Amino acid sequence: MQIDNLLKQINFIKEIDKLKYVQRKTKLFNSDRNENDAEHSWHLAMMTIVLAEHSDQKIDVMKVLKMVLIHDIVEIDAGDTFIYDTAKNHTNTDEELIAAQRIFGLLPKEQAEEFIGIWQEFEEGITDEAKFARSMDRLEPLLQNTSTNGGTWKEFKVPYQKVYDKKKAIKNGSSLL
Amino acid sequence: MQIDNLLKQINFIKEIDKLKYVQRKTKLFNSDRNENDAEHSWHLAMMTIVLAEHSDQKIDVMKVLKMVLIHDIVEIDAGDTFIYDTAKNHTNTDEELIAAQRIFGLLPKEQAEEFIGIWQEFEEGITDEAKFARSMDRLEPLLQNTSTNGGTWKEFKVPYQKVYDKKKAIKNGSSLL
Ligand SMILES: [Ca+2]
Repeated sequence: MQIDNLLKQINFIKEIDKLKYVQRKTKLFNSDRNENDAEHSWHLAMMTIVLAEHSDQKIDVMKVLKMVLIHDIVEIDAGDTFIYDTAKNHTNTDEELIAAQRIFGLLPKEQAEEFIGIWQEFEEGITDEAKFARSMDRLEPLLQNTSTNGGTWKEFKVPYQKVYDKKKAIKNGSSLL
Repeated sequence: MQIDNLLKQINFIKEIDKLKYVQRKTKLFNSDRNENDAEHSWHLAMMTIVLAEHSDQKIDVMKVLKMVLIHDIVEIDAGDTFIYDTAKNHTNTDEELIAAQRIFGLLPKEQAEEFIGIWQEFEEGITDEAKFARSMDRLEPLLQNTSTNGGTWKEFKVPYQKVYDKKKAIKNGSSLL
């Protein structure tokens, strides 16, 4: 049983290697290379550890870490959704739910349910942990843009107002940020 | 004071973006692209969450996560050390310590000290958390190699015995693995 679980877990660990191939629209700091979802998720985890003390609410940092580490895994099947893309809004699409069930479903049952639950909590953005995790997800591209002369925003002609509206999501997690 | 800390933290968060440029010798699963340290660290964090239940000892999973997320950050200055490289063994070199002091030193004092301490604990490999974190670091390339027909090992002509010796480090973290 423990061996059976381990084999499922190893299988999942191999499958999620694919997240390193999912390209985001954003560029690395001071570079022309696009960021991939795996290195993006690492950066959010680092931001979580470093910035957790600024949360307005007492948060379960471990849960936030799990959220940011797994939040993009569905994109292995469902692709990246650029937050300023008006055609395809970043809602919890059917496609993403099917992806979550397939990929997290590789894990032992209990763990699969835990991960799907954490991913859904992140998507809904209601709990303090989800708000903080989503703040990190919004803040990273803002930092990137300050170091590449507004690269992505210029490229996609994002109107200022939209950037401002999205930035408000950051305020939900921390009034200082 | 809180703002002062935040500015230091933002500065650190921008600096560590460079980890996405540090190339490892290992290839991605089923691919010719080299893995970078940031996506590698994300994968170790995922492995930690998924596999923590198999640890022989009761471990502080949050500390292990911090270890695997930061363990390679010194390589921004000090470069990657391939574990099968005999010329430059993976010891806690002076160069790495200077790198740790510079990079973690960008953070507020208390946080800088915490991170340097966690990195040193990982390097020493004595505590249960460090043993488990190092198991993850050894296990990832083993999994990669089973999916690319022994890519890196063949390429570097690593004798079997060396691979076996390194694998023993995994046993230190979990007898099942
Ligand atoms: Ca290393």
